[in-house]
Amino acid sequence: MDVKSIPNTVIRRLPRYYRFLDELMESGVERISSAELSRRMNVTASQIRQDLNHFGAFGQQGYGYHVEYLYQEIGRILGLDRVNEMVFIGAGNLGRALANYGNFVKRGFQMIAMFDQNPELIGKTLACGLVVRDIAELEAFLAEHPVRMAGIAIPKTNAPAVAERLVACGVKAIWNFAHTDLALPDDVVVENVHLSESLMELSYLYHSRYPEEP
Amino acid sequence: MDVKSIPNTVIRRLPRYYRFLDELMESGVERISSAELSRRMNVTASQIRQDLNHFGAFGQQGYGYHVEYLYQEIGRILGLDRVNEMVFIGAGNLGRALANYGNFVKRGFQMIAMFDQNPELIGKTLACGLVVRDIAELEAFLAEHPVRMAGIAIPKTNAPAVAERLVACGVKAIWNFAHTDLALPDDVVVENVHLSESLMELSYLYHSRYPEEP
Repeated sequence: MDVKSIPNTVIRRLPRYYRFLDELMESGVERISSAELSRRMNVTASQIRQDLNHFGAFGQQGYGYHVEYLYQEIGRILGLDRVNEMVFIGAGNLGRALANYGNFVKRGFQMIAMFDQNPELIGKTLACGLVVRDIAELEAFLAEHPVRMAGIAIPKTNAPAVAERLVACGVKAIWNFAHTDLALPDDVVVENVHLSESLMELSYLYHSRYPEEP
Repeated sequence: MDVKSIPNTVIRRLPRYYRFLDELMESGVERISSAELSRRMNVTASQIRQDLNHFGAFGQQGYGYHVEYLYQEIGRILGLDRVNEMVFIGAGNLGRALANYGNFVKRGFQMIAMFDQNPELIGKTLACGLVVRDIAELEAFLAEHPVRMAGIAIPKTNAPAVAERLVACGVKAIWNFAHTDLALPDDVVVENVHLSESLMELSYLYHSRYPEEP
């Protein structure tokens, strides 16, 4: 199977399949029909068949999908079949929450260092065991531990400069929680999580549905 | 202007316009051409003209867009021209990070109560000033303070039951950080923020771009 042949719209749906397949495995389900998966995921069975057909002939008539095999194939496409080492910048509330979130480790994302510029945070030990490092040591650390993925949860004013430093150290993928867009070279991939914007979308969904409510 | 006439794809882009217009106002910019906004937002000028045309004739030839007016109009569409009171369930790291995030208050989102079931957290005062309440008091609180919006950042096993309780109390909009889909009545709007899934997307973007890298 060639990853390039899978449309982007399908790729965007893979993490959700992955989550449902994981839950099925946890419940001891070995195989599942597209009809049953459709019911659970609230997606049409036809959509599921179209999406999962990209992974070859796993959905055999009368057999359904082999849950673990599909889970592993999707994991491989998403790059979860290995350990992805990351560094994280910003040991504020959000950064600490993310660093301490066990689910990421379960998915193979290993946070190997946390940096901050705040003297009150530097040297503190997080619940996950990492000790907050001085951002001044970023370059030295990355020279010794060259990682390609980094997360940023810092104020928007500092984010562009920090992102540039990461890129100069060879980081190619940035998970950006700073409330700004990062203008980075084309060979760097960025996934933005703009929490304020998601809250605004919720607000829109609510008020457009209930225009009479306060 | 009728909100209903604005396509959903445009609506989804409004929070980003709102953010850029806010930054322009902060920098003292009163009006801006679609060409200049295009350069800053890294979107084609034609896209900007099409999107903003839904807001009437603000982009006058040779004048450009009136920044503050457009900012306020978009804010009104997004429901940010009022105070949106919310409750939040889950005073763990992520919940506390969200409760303490000043940017939401700036956008009119007022968190009026935080609930948790963990005895070690109940009674604690958060940096934002809220005292964590016992989730057992949820119904009583909402009977006295009927709010329509709620956030959830709790483990996936508890999330469906808590969401049902919120809905039974009249909540119509849920900002869901629990790592599960919520099956709720059609009259409840949900905005999911699945952080693991966004990290998987980053992983996919990176590994599909750099298949030779570890």
